[in-house]
Amino acid sequence: MPASTPRRGFLKGAALAGAGLMTGSVAKAAPLPIPESNTVMGDPIPAESYGLPTEFEKHVKRRRSDVFKNKQNFSDWSMTPLQHQIGIVTPNGLFFERHHNGVAKIDPDKHRLVIHGLVDRPLEFSMDDIVRYPSVSRFHFMECSGNTLTDWREPKSVTVQQSHGLLACAQWTGVPLSWLLAEAGVKPEGKWVMFEGGDGSGHLRSIPIEKVMDDALLVYGQNGERLRAEQGYPIRAFFPGWEGNTCVKWLRRIKVVAEPDQIRGETARYSDPMPNGKWRQFSMVMECKSVITSPSGGMSLKGPGLYEVQGFAWSGNGKITNVDLTFDGGRTWREAAIEGPALDKCLTRFRYRWNWDGGPAKLASRAMDSTGYVQPTVEDIARVREISGFVQHHNGIFPWTVAQSGEVSNAIA
Amino acid sequence: MPASTPRRGFLKGAALAGAGLMTGSVAKAAPLPIPESNTVMGDPIPAESYGLPTEFEKHVKRRRSDVFKNKQNFSDWSMTPLQHQIGIVTPNGLFFERHHNGVAKIDPDKHRLVIHGLVDRPLEFSMDDIVRYPSVSRFHFMECSGNTLTDWREPKSVTVQQSHGLLACAQWTGVPLSWLLAEAGVKPEGKWVMFEGGDGSGHLRSIPIEKVMDDALLVYGQNGERLRAEQGYPIRAFFPGWEGNTCVKWLRRIKVVAEPDQIRGETARYSDPMPNGKWRQFSMVMECKSVITSPSGGMSLKGPGLYEVQGFAWSGNGKITNVDLTFDGGRTWREAAIEGPALDKCLTRFRYRWNWDGGPAKLASRAMDSTGYVQPTVEDIARVREISGFVQHHNGIFPWTVAQSGEVSNAIA
Repeated sequence: MPASTPRRGFLKGAALAGAGLMTGSVAKAAPLPIPESNTVMGDPIPAESYGLPTEFEKHVKRRRSDVFKNKQNFSDWSMTPLQHQIGIVTPNGLFFERHHNGVAKIDPDKHRLVIHGLVDRPLEFSMDDIVRYPSVSRFHFMECSGNTLTDWREPKSVTVQQSHGLLACAQWTGVPLSWLLAEAGVKPEGKWVMFEGGDGSGHLRSIPIEKVMDDALLVYGQNGERLRAEQGYPIRAFFPGWEGNTCVKWLRRIKVVAEPDQIRGETARYSDPMPNGKWRQFSMVMECKSVITSPSGGMSLKGPGLYEVQGFAWSGNGKITNVDLTFDGGRTWREAAIEGPALDKCLTRFRYRWNWDGGPAKLASRAMDSTGYVQPTVEDIARVREISGFVQHHNGIFPWTVAQSGEVSNAIA
Repeated sequence: MPASTPRRGFLKGAALAGAGLMTGSVAKAAPLPIPESNTVMGDPIPAESYGLPTEFEKHVKRRRSDVFKNKQNFSDWSMTPLQHQIGIVTPNGLFFERHHNGVAKIDPDKHRLVIHGLVDRPLEFSMDDIVRYPSVSRFHFMECSGNTLTDWREPKSVTVQQSHGLLACAQWTGVPLSWLLAEAGVKPEGKWVMFEGGDGSGHLRSIPIEKVMDDALLVYGQNGERLRAEQGYPIRAFFPGWEGNTCVKWLRRIKVVAEPDQIRGETARYSDPMPNGKWRQFSMVMECKSVITSPSGGMSLKGPGLYEVQGFAWSGNGKITNVDLTFDGGRTWREAAIEGPALDKCLTRFRYRWNWDGGPAKLASRAMDSTGYVQPTVEDIARVREISGFVQHHNGIFPWTVAQSGEVSNAIA
């Protein structure tokens, strides 16, 4: 528990806030009523199944953006319902999607992956070859470079699903790329590696060889099972802590090259306008960021009292070491408790017991990572970058207001 | 990588075993053929969705036992396909089930949980009260006391799903029971706590107060979302490292008592026959255990060469510190690599690069936990317990044979 909130404090608060004590004694209800579920047969187990959530949870869905609607839905995205996520693992069924030409359908038995270009020995792999190969499993977040793209000039997002839902976390399983490139033998002039997808857009990215040899993976497993089709089945690239679009899905080709390809996804897209009118390219690391998911936009607090404020912090550069919270719009800050395991380049949950006095409040979180980097304010970012159009790679501190009514709203602006 | 297997060793092995090198150069295939998936539009993203696995993975299912078939399927179980599990997180849709009277259907808005008995202040909670309460998220395995129940006198299980599939792992989210009992105030004479479910069987277990106050949870979240109906929606008890049947599902009543209830589930069931004719009760800790999942029964090795042997180790008493493997039926043992994070009372994956010479082999794993306890042999267990009927709490070393043909089979006997 956060040292900042003594246990008694919560008990008193709980009494006020109806989180237990005020729901009262059962004496009045004795003898306990027998619910109908105790009196009937339940549903039997089918011979075989892949289970689904109960009907009572069917409101928990990933959704296309209601804020910025595409004219068509082939180059599109769906967003993770972070306000409903419990723990750090995002269920595969709720993991956000981003496609440039819809979801490709690939038969794993026919699929081939090729490593070629500036290598001593070009290689071709079937999926059986890849899965037969030794593997590793690692927990990492994935964030789209355009997460929190739309709110900086005009706060249109109502919920944290709309503002930050291009973010999710999973345990990924696959083969370290450095092992396979060691088998192919990278020539001295090979400084970049190009990854191409087998989808209709032939999505393409060039990655510096240093990152590829450091911790890049060829991923075929996610959260205990094979990749879902919308996540690149049967195989995708994965670069821990780097923008999602580098993690090329439906991967069919890996080419070692001397220079980046300078393709559309590296020039007209995924690049950042600077104050001097120039554009920054290859800014692929998703820097330290955090957001409060409870309370968050669209929620309503049920009167004054103690609430456990929760949220996520993450960094593409390392582990989360600290998360501070403000309840007065940034005038004062208090330290939240970080829940372990706090893993490298992984969603990390923070918790803080907040006694809401019932007055207006402005909440925000500020994360720090193991490199010492502190999540910047919107103003900090505006000083070094041009905030115009869709702002890629925006990791600014994001506030919510709590009105006297208890209603929680997007407070950017 | 395991120090015991030098990198070169794997490369050579891979060359032999077709895990890369032998799939050959792509030169012969240049220019690369363009797959059809590169030439067509993919599937669009629906407005909202809860995603499912691709059709190419529909063979991965949890299944009722083919080995020991129930006459009816209300008191029944389904088993996790461990041979297909990647990483340590079991997808909720594949998490094994065990019900005494089918799956109860409970409306969370109507559900009430009561804490009463030897307490100063009996309490009643709605689900809103529970979820409003501060929570924790922790990774833990869950194993049925009857896992590997049927094979000890006659090896009938073909696959590891059939032999060990009453095992799974998840990140669980809920409220530590010690916090709520502190609010209720446990009287000095309260030494046990009885948990009752809201299902048709009214499943009941008594748990010593020490375990309840140590690390027991009231769980409503599993792997990032609310519990599935078959896992006790909207709320269940969870005792890390203890047999699954203690983790009462559809929980409606918690009663602090002086003595255990000595109900059927504590006498005629879940108790262990001893050599002296007496029965051991309340043996609820699932002790240190492991099993090789790849290669495992029903699989077939494709010729001599290097294979990454993988499996799971777990202990209800702590963390896994060592896993040894034998390939000659227990004559010699080698140390496997343990993949982190190796968490408390959690599935832990081990890996070892084995160069199969193509001859008959007998594989098994032997785990050790942080208490120094070593997983016993079947003979060790037979010396202290009566191996008759269904053997509960059997954590014996479990072997697979690899025939010259490459076929892998259950080698218990």
